[in-house]
Amino acid sequence: MEKGILLILSAPSGTGKTTVRDALLEELPGLRKAITTTTRPSRPGEIDGKDYFFLGVDEFKKKLEEGRFLEHAVIYGNYYGSGKDYIESELSAGRDVILVVDAQGARSIKMTDISAVFIYLLPPSLKELRRRLEGRKTDSADVIEKRFSQAQKEMAYMDEYDYCIICRDVEGTVEDIKAIIRAEKCRVERNPEIIKTIEGDEK
Amino acid sequence: MEKGILLILSAPSGTGKTTVRDALLEELPGLRKAITTTTRPSRPGEIDGKDYFFLGVDEFKKKLEEGRFLEHAVIYGNYYGSGKDYIESELSAGRDVILVVDAQGARSIKMTDISAVFIYLLPPSLKELRRRLEGRKTDSADVIEKRFSQAQKEMAYMDEYDYCIICRDVEGTVEDIKAIIRAEKCRVERNPEIIKTIEGDEK
Repeated sequence: MEKGILLILSAPSGTGKTTVRDALLEELPGLRKAITTTTRPSRPGEIDGKDYFFLGVDEFKKKLEEGRFLEHAVIYGNYYGSGKDYIESELSAGRDVILVVDAQGARSIKMTDISAVFIYLLPPSLKELRRRLEGRKTDSADVIEKRFSQAQKEMAYMDEYDYCIICRDVEGTVEDIKAIIRAEKCRVERNPEIIKTIEGDEK
Repeated sequence: MEKGILLILSAPSGTGKTTVRDALLEELPGLRKAITTTTRPSRPGEIDGKDYFFLGVDEFKKKLEEGRFLEHAVIYGNYYGSGKDYIESELSAGRDVILVVDAQGARSIKMTDISAVFIYLLPPSLKELRRRLEGRKTDSADVIEKRFSQAQKEMAYMDEYDYCIICRDVEGTVEDIKAIIRAEKCRVERNPEIIKTIEGDEK
């Protein structure tokens, strides 16, 4: 059984990473979403166990101490973490997993021994990023400003990623990521048994 | 102007690399074929300046001394070489170039300072490879045997390539290579100016 690929997707808030991820999940039946565990309150419409695992702070800390997270972070006072067990079992079953995290989280994953493909999405322009953040209407002006300045800081980490995509539209970005997945599956280091496969028939 | 990508395509004879390359050239208008220069006699239907540049041995050697080849080899007593000028001017103009060479040629290119993406095609099985070599009917039994044993030797070099594809059918292989080209264009190291691009609009 060929192992799945773990895709790490980062982007400044407002770039459209969640929309892109959801479109990918819809198009690729072999792709799974890594569900983030968080202590932040759920937003209207969010479903526990689907959008996030919502957990109390104490429970989160307990899991953290047990080493059950691939990475974790505290953002705006809330804990976020990516549970190891689910991701590893999906990869072992040959399914690809997509995990949306910030640059800090991506960096933590890079320091583990888990192999992953790191993709960074960029907004078409800073002007457009600000427009998208403002258009969301779920955040206060203060939070928008915070996110905007955080976005600019995050972009400095782009060099630590394997791929970067300017997210002009969802369709094009989805096609880029589908191409990345297809290409990555052809990488020589992911196919150590390939020569044996084609020799098998001759013996 | 973003530089084009140089694709190096290798495969044992009989894998279908020429068919795959020609299908790619047909589908991708931004892709150019690196025309090989050779001293071997032309086969029926081959056109000078399109399929190959056919050159006399003395002329070939002169160009070789002038350093005008990216790589060259002597195969079955004939010289083969990839002219530098054409490839570099196409890449600079933002076009991708595909070059079909054997493992030895690929290795020579790797030792130059030109950046390239190395793709190795494999036959579905050794049995199928032998069948395809025999089916071609342009070579003697002796040459077929030589090519078959050469093919097995060549596969040992696969680890030096970036990507490997089992060529089960032309369509699937073409889609794999199109994905590789699309993915490679998203690689962070190919986009050093990307942050400046999106910042440009704000200033």
